[in-house]
Amino acid sequence: MERVYNFSAGPSMLPLEVLEKAQAEMLCYGESGMSVMEMSHRSKDFMDILAGAEASLRKLMNIPDNYKVLFMQGGASTQFAAVPLNLLSERKCADYIVSGQFSKKAATEAKKYADVAIAASSGGANTTFSTIPETTRADFRPDADYVHICFNNTIYGTKFHYIPDTGNIPLVADMSSCILSEPIDVSKFALIYAGAQKNVAPAGVTIVIVRSDLIGNADPKTPAMLDYKLMAENDSMYNTPPCWCIYMAKLVFDWLLSIGGLEEMKRRNERKASLLYDYLDDQHYYTTNVDKKCRSLMNVVFFTGDAELDAKFAKEAAAAGLKNLKGHRSVGGMRASIYNCMPYEGVEKLVKFMKKFAEDNPKLTL
Amino acid sequence: MERVYNFSAGPSMLPLEVLEKAQAEMLCYGESGMSVMEMSHRSKDFMDILAGAEASLRKLMNIPDNYKVLFMQGGASTQFAAVPLNLLSERKCADYIVSGQFSKKAATEAKKYADVAIAASSGGANTTFSTIPETTRADFRPDADYVHICFNNTIYGTKFHYIPDTGNIPLVADMSSCILSEPIDVSKFALIYAGAQKNVAPAGVTIVIVRSDLIGNADPKTPAMLDYKLMAENDSMYNTPPCWCIYMAKLVFDWLLSIGGLEEMKRRNERKASLLYDYLDDQHYYTTNVDKKCRSLMNVVFFTGDAELDAKFAKEAAAAGLKNLKGHRSVGGMRASIYNCMPYEGVEKLVKFMKKFAEDNPKLTL
Repeated sequence: MERVYNFSAGPSMLPLEVLEKAQAEMLCYGESGMSVMEMSHRSKDFMDILAGAEASLRKLMNIPDNYKVLFMQGGASTQFAAVPLNLLSERKCADYIVSGQFSKKAATEAKKYADVAIAASSGGANTTFSTIPETTRADFRPDADYVHICFNNTIYGTKFHYIPDTGNIPLVADMSSCILSEPIDVSKFALIYAGAQKNVAPAGVTIVIVRSDLIGNADPKTPAMLDYKLMAENDSMYNTPPCWCIYMAKLVFDWLLSIGGLEEMKRRNERKASLLYDYLDDQHYYTTNVDKKCRSLMNVVFFTGDAELDAKFAKEAAAAGLKNLKGHRSVGGMRASIYNCMPYEGVEKLVKFMKKFAEDNPKLTL
Repeated sequence: MERVYNFSAGPSMLPLEVLEKAQAEMLCYGESGMSVMEMSHRSKDFMDILAGAEASLRKLMNIPDNYKVLFMQGGASTQFAAVPLNLLSERKCADYIVSGQFSKKAATEAKKYADVAIAASSGGANTTFSTIPETTRADFRPDADYVHICFNNTIYGTKFHYIPDTGNIPLVADMSSCILSEPIDVSKFALIYAGAQKNVAPAGVTIVIVRSDLIGNADPKTPAMLDYKLMAENDSMYNTPPCWCIYMAKLVFDWLLSIGGLEEMKRRNERKASLLYDYLDDQHYYTTNVDKKCRSLMNVVFFTGDAELDAKFAKEAAAAGLKNLKGHRSVGGMRASIYNCMPYEGVEKLVKFMKKFAEDNPKLTL
């Protein structure tokens, strides 16, 4: 069976050369005589993998020294609770910008612990999260313990086109679906977190990059495994970490460094996304409802305008080796997730398929 | 490099044929054209893997229908919080039997949420957790919301030789280091949990087997990802689960079924453990301090009585392909973890090495 182009919103494609390396050393890592999956997390081999993963990530993202890097478990959804549990002061007051389903979920979870205000939202009765709300400092409560955003909205195909100015209020960003897709100024954020399964590694590890001064104030009822202080003090090894996922993450980080880091990754991602957006802008068969300035580099949502045609598209595309193009159930249409590891050729093949499909399936009403 | 015998306390050995199967389908699972690591968790392929893993586990452990099987993240240490958060009633009262470091940690974590009583302990100023406390129903508070035990104590090499009679009080067991090592009557427990990295799969997935009537009473401040109800309602897919670890777990479950299930596994484990314990009982060079009736089938702790000799032993054993025999730092000596996937030949080779080492390193004081 040939490998396909997998446009899944996550988990998603990994670089073939990373998979091949992992496959080659799967039964025996280096001189260890065992698989990374079988290795004591306290062994020198694994400690080197963990330290190497952190070093490579720091280099890639140019993470300042006053930030800790944690490898945690439970995905972004666990961070939805960990963030308020760790960052709230006695005021217990947090502001959320809602730009999609995940930021909404994050705000809902935070309500268990905090007085949550929706500082801005692009949702609502007649809107579809097709844009990102503009904000100014005045939109945030001066006594908020933090402001939370979701930087890229996987479901709707939008991305923050600016970094909100929150003044002295710590800015927290869920970057699950855009981390490592382009350079970002980490110092503009107090905390960045990301589930690994889109741009980093197989599902099962969550990256948390947190400014050191924000660590150590967790609510006394915080589960130990969600306490950033405990995780930081134990170098993410308070208990057995998800070793295989961390190993895969390291291979992906090293692959990113080998191709030229995030500048080069951004160039490639922009080239891929442009190919698709330029085509969409240049025809009338497919529509896309996303505000142009907020277009995601990672997730491109489009529609034929006919649910049956959409279904036919996804089915025929899959048969042609272009898998998982069906849009999210809450949105419909199609979604092409073109994360870091989707090759340019995959998008080329998709655009070619889109053109052919439009020709073969004329819409009667047009 | 040849594969070694890895006596690590966890993560630990996986069956070679499982690793080989995973390796063979690593770049392309079945007809999917992608790795399991790249696969959408909502795809039919992965849904089949998840359902298959649960079905195989139910078959192996003969899990009654009124129990839910959850695949969670965060290891046993996360369950240390999840158990009280989910099982406490308004009484908030829980009893713990302390038989080692992990049951102690579990009790400490529970104190964040509950009035915790240590119903029995085999620790203390002059004891070393070398036995398992005997208990009767009278040792537990009648209004306790649950009784918690750690069924096998990895560090000390002890195992519960009986199932505590808690009457109507739900019995909760951490089985991280003995799950699937022998048949167990699940119906005697209200909840069983286990980190995967010893007998099941690579680190990163936690198995929770919980009686359905205990689900649905979580504390309102329980992080969503720790709420058994949410996990059960979403078939462990409230968010992206650790797909690769679940896939590996399924391969291991199917391997266990293929060799004859837990009866056969028990036979093999007893045969391995007997080889080692019989040798230990039959000589005077090495000592073992564990109460005979509480000896673990999984972790065998022994000492030369001389810290330098112990270190020499671990070093020379490693050079001979018998890795990770150094005891836990809190105990010293040696620890041979002989989990399900350690072959008989590994223990044979170990005993042979032990004999030779004793001959080559006479103790002056004997």
